[in-house]
Amino acid sequence: MQRELVVRTGSRAELVDITGQVADVVRASGVEEGLCALLVPHTTAGLTLNENWDPSVRRDILAALERLVPWRGEYTHSEGNSAAHIKAFLCGFSAWVPIEGGLLSLGQWQGIYLAEFDGPRTRRVVVTVISSS
Amino acid sequence: MQRELVVRTGSRAELVDITGQVADVVRASGVEEGLCALLVPHTTAGLTLNENWDPSVRRDILAALERLVPWRGEYTHSEGNSAAHIKAFLCGFSAWVPIEGGLLSLGQWQGIYLAEFDGPRTRRVVVTVISSS
Amino acid sequence: MQRELVVRTGSRAELVDITGQVADVVRASGVEEGLCALLVPHTTAGLTLNENWDPSVRRDILAALERLVPWRGEYTHSEGNSAAHIKAFLCGFSAWVPIEGGLLSLGQWQGIYLAEFDGPRTRRVVVTVISSS
Repeated sequence: MQRELVVRTGSRAELVDITGQVADVVRASGVEEGLCALLVPHTTAGLTLNENWDPSVRRDILAALERLVPWRGEYTHSEGNSAAHIKAFLCGFSAWVPIEGGLLSLGQWQGIYLAEFDGPRTRRVVVTVISSS
Repeated sequence: MQRELVVRTGSRAELVDITGQVADVVRASGVEEGLCALLVPHTTAGLTLNENWDPSVRRDILAALERLVPWRGEYTHSEGNSAAHIKAFLCGFSAWVPIEGGLLSLGQWQGIYLAEFDGPRTRRVVVTVISSS
Repeated sequence: MQRELVVRTGSRAELVDITGQVADVVRASGVEEGLCALLVPHTTAGLTLNENWDPSVRRDILAALERLVPWRGEYTHSEGNSAAHIKAFLCGFSAWVPIEGGLLSLGQWQGIYLAEFDGPRTRRVVVTVISSS
């Protein structure tokens, strides 16, 4: 089964929790055991599976990325958002999560995040559910 | 279905567009809905899904990586290509793209790239196509 | 088929070879052609597929990460392990390896590594095997 999520981001750089939306797709699929594969079909946003509890972790991740790849830097791309492309490259665009007992099998402190690096924008996430049984 | 692509790279660091070759494998598989999983079976090259339009984005990505992980640096590995291993680690070696209606479902500006960090070399990419229906 | 591996790490930052344990799961699954998807359900450890031969490569990767994201830095997260979250973000939490002829189809110099960034700890890796035939 394949579904597309729509995610509205609110600032230039942000980690948006989409775990609930992805869990809804898995539930609707009826798959008991398998995998849920995710793709962000954008070039200035990525996907990560990080800490869902303390928001300071997300702040620290974004601040560290900004130190490594500053928004204003030695770039040639005329649109001015090269830093967003580079951060998304470092983050990655595809990920997957196992499905066990009909549920997403993430770690206790782990959520699924759309990583926005050039917002605010409306973003999409493609979710594909595959059965392994 | 599983196929292996051969990709010839032309310089030390380069992002080579392999979208067309991957699309050919998907077409040949006849899978209508599912996923196309990709692996680079190398340790100094990676895979990314980035901007397919303006080549300045790819230049800026490679230049930023070189600033973060300079070719000549504090490395101990005697082959002299530690920077390539580290860049490939940051890039990642596996990725996947959804298949919808028998076609790769990438974003409008998104291409599949082999990321060469220690070329020129002949590289391989393993493509596995799985049906989700 | 889905199995969970347990991996005991021995230092704060370490790349632990889990290729043999993953290969055992693939063998037990009896799948001849398909894919083996891996997830680290943690937020301060990741997964990579790097050099399995010369240990200096792994040392150089960890040292470069420490230069990019020093353990003591400008972080706000009160647990003091923000650097581990950031390194795991850069590394990634999920990966996949093709299965051909009933075996993991990795590159000649490629191993599957749990990347520990906040050890020593006991870590888990979820392995899902999917047939493509």
